Amino acid sequence: MANGTNFFSNTSGTREEILESTFHALCEHGYAGLTISKIGDHFDKSQSLIYHHYDNKDDLLLDLLEYILEELESQVPLSTQSPKEYINEIVEQIFGDTDSSNAQFSKAVLELRAQTAHNEEYRELFKRSDEFVRKQIALVIQEGSEQGVFDVNQPKQAAALFQTVIVGIQGQRTTDDQNMIGSTKAEFQRYVDQCLLSSAERK
Amino acid sequence: MANGTNFFSNTSGTREEILESTFHALCEHGYAGLTISKIGDHFDKSQSLIYHHYDNKDDLLLDLLEYILEELESQVPLSTQSPKEYINEIVEQIFGDTDSSNAQFSKAVLELRAQTAHNEEYRELFKRSDEFVRKQIALVIQEGSEQGVFDVNQPKQAAALFQTVIVGIQGQRTTDDQNMIGSTKAEFQRYVDQCLLSSAERK
Repeated sequence: MANGTNFFSNTSGTREEILESTFHALCEHGYAGLTISKIGDHFDKSQSLIYHHYDNKDDLLLDLLEYILEELESQVPLSTQSPKEYINEIVEQIFGDTDSSNAQFSKAVLELRAQTAHNEEYRELFKRSDEFVRKQIALVIQEGSEQGVFDVNQPKQAAALFQTVIVGIQGQRTTDDQNMIGSTKAEFQRYVDQCLLSSAERK
Repeated sequence: MANGTNFFSNTSGTREEILESTFHALCEHGYAGLTISKIGDHFDKSQSLIYHHYDNKDDLLLDLLEYILEELESQVPLSTQSPKEYINEIVEQIFGDTDSSNAQFSKAVLELRAQTAHNEEYRELFKRSDEFVRKQIALVIQEGSEQGVFDVNQPKQAAALFQTVIVGIQGQRTTDDQNMIGSTKAEFQRYVDQCLLSSAERK
């Protein structure tokens, strides 16, 4: 959801530097084309440092996912936001600016998600990440329902649809079809209006 | 959307046999681990036949995608179905039985979709496939709106959300989280009821 490159805005320490190099190399070469040597091309220090910290590319990519996940988990929504503002913010983030760094991040995440098909460790990390996002959204929808802003009996169910749309848009960003993402956003906003908001809040 | 293995139920001819072998090898080994030799293990005839027809694995996988797409395009919905029945059928297909062959197919498609990040030919095929599915759904929603069963001003917009949910569920099947898919289905049905059906048709 968030912009990938933002995760590395305060890069400090060897681990972060290696992970940032890995992220850029993944965006450039893709999963299948990624090698430690290509990661080294993006890394200012000695390539031997990478081998010192990691056994192989999956080891490194799993740590990258873990790092992104930790960053995501630390970005807890501001408590000053109302549930309605928070949901609007989420919608903006899901469909947000498809600037090139955002699209690159989506592609990289999609490639890593595809590894879940054959790798239990990737699967567990994505499960944990998906569950985290879903729980956050469900909590906010529940809070909004208690306040009478939303009228939703099953907040977890609504959060599951949000999660599916997040994954779907990440998958669709790869085909660079901007019109389509705009159309989905408009329809999803119609869903939020008609299926989440209480009748008093509806436009 | 459809079950992958069904595409090969009437396998006849060398191309189909090679493509079926490729499909099974892709499900077993994943994109990165796939080789012509591993495809050969699933192929009853001489492996040299594969090299005779295809230059490399991407050449083969692109033909597999093309083949699946042709099959999909030929599965035009029965005209005897009403728009409402058709939409219900689509919803059942999106979230349908996650038997193991269906999950395998989703994983294989996700892996191929991830190639769109770095390969223009994959991107074009997925774009064509996505557009086809979206157009079909938009047509049916428009027909239903003309008949007064649906009340949708922007059928293309609604179809875009369907498409995103299709891609999202394919992405999520890889984490094997059955509960989550059931929750998304229930919420998506609530969307269909409240955002697509005309007030006369609503439960």
